[in-house]
Amino acid sequence: MSSSIRLTAIRGIPEVRPGDDIGVMISRAAGGMKFKLTDGDIVVVAQKIISKAEGRLVNLESIAPSEFAHEIARGQNRDPRLIEVILSESTNIVRMDGQVLIAETRHGLICANAGVDRSNVIGENWVSLLPFAPDDSALLLKTRLAELLKVNVAVIITDTFGRPWREGLVNVAIGVAGMKPLKDFRGKMDDHGKELSATVLAVADEIAAATGLLMKKTSRIPVVVVRGFYFDHGEGSAKELVRAKERDLFR
Amino acid sequence: MSSSIRLTAIRGIPEVRPGDDIGVMISRAAGGMKFKLTDGDIVVVAQKIISKAEGRLVNLESIAPSEFAHEIARGQNRDPRLIEVILSESTNIVRMDGQVLIAETRHGLICANAGVDRSNVIGENWVSLLPFAPDDSALLLKTRLAELLKVNVAVIITDTFGRPWREGLVNVAIGVAGMKPLKDFRGKMDDHGKELSATVLAVADEIAAATGLLMKKTSRIPVVVVRGFYFDHGEGSAKELVRAKERDLFR
Repeated sequence: MSSSIRLTAIRGIPEVRPGDDIGVMISRAAGGMKFKLTDGDIVVVAQKIISKAEGRLVNLESIAPSEFAHEIARGQNRDPRLIEVILSESTNIVRMDGQVLIAETRHGLICANAGVDRSNVIGENWVSLLPFAPDDSALLLKTRLAELLKVNVAVIITDTFGRPWREGLVNVAIGVAGMKPLKDFRGKMDDHGKELSATVLAVADEIAAATGLLMKKTSRIPVVVVRGFYFDHGEGSAKELVRAKERDLFR
Repeated sequence: MSSSIRLTAIRGIPEVRPGDDIGVMISRAAGGMKFKLTDGDIVVVAQKIISKAEGRLVNLESIAPSEFAHEIARGQNRDPRLIEVILSESTNIVRMDGQVLIAETRHGLICANAGVDRSNVIGENWVSLLPFAPDDSALLLKTRLAELLKVNVAVIITDTFGRPWREGLVNVAIGVAGMKPLKDFRGKMDDHGKELSATVLAVADEIAAATGLLMKKTSRIPVVVVRGFYFDHGEGSAKELVRAKERDLFR
């Protein structure tokens, strides 16, 4: 059983552009650091570079906002074109207040602006969207790293989300491949022989949060490798981390 | 700047009893592993052993439930004595459904059963409460480790909480000493010279989550040391992580 876990920031990944091969970029950057990926590593990647590589970028100048977007934009004193993009990424508005717009995305994620983001995108008028299918993006990268480096790793794609009740953002898992994102201890005994109740740990979110410590916002570290955490293999999907509406007491 | 972070599980901490000196226990266990704490380390401790050392244990046989506790217990098919203890730890019931009772504690934490827990406590009828003042507990431990080992470390006390919208529990910070729990990037520029908006990271929660990967529920690892994360020193308090009610869109 693991006694230690190491998180390593992969440095030297260049600016990512649509069509870029992130697998090659990670392989080269790791090679440049003399860092050798091995079986059982978890490669954690910030959503932003996946979105850029997949061309999930929108130029606000191309957007014609609807009347509804204009109405929200007036109330929030924000750019109606940005609101239009947010609405097009949303299935449901969860809360609006001041300049805050919290929405549910088609992935079932609940987050500010449906994941539409102006920061770290080249050009004043460009915004990035979340990957269309982050689990698929994770699986593609896992497969590409297996081809390039002959390694069997898990991949997690992360974004930083706010939370009800607590201040500050934390990094969470929005795409997963090659590991079970939840670890289920139900039915097992605690150290005193009592059955553990309701203990399912969101390990993929804990891994995402851990790597958030190295993915600083102002320095270009979009990839962190986690080594020494023995996870349950399996196909896995970040959808397992999304609570079904009917099980959710807060919707 | 840090390129890697290491998490080390401190093994060999014995069963904790009321009055035990956790500082001595951690020092001895680390010594037994030939692990030397150094300045800048973050010592992360599961709430359960702090609560035990502080005698925050209640024997349900000593509890006379109120009529209100009986009423909730009937509705939830649970032990009215346990409900009575939960109510006494709560300032506010946030949600009740099925056997779930989510309450706000006097610390402002919102969590299942106000942190009252039956698992990993000796004896069928005993439950543990959260530490009375987890920031103070953290500061006491920080001071004790400075005395014993001449080191300047930060201390985080953690518990595992559920979250709205997402499945699975994650480890979060409920007590902090010697570090700022939030890292504020507002006003800084992103890698393209655009101002970062709304980027305050809950680093203490990310650290707590990271250590949750090693604090497995069924193995006795209540202490993990985090090395290589350069944090902002300062008094710090987990209260900074609690969103004020008037700023919270979800209460």
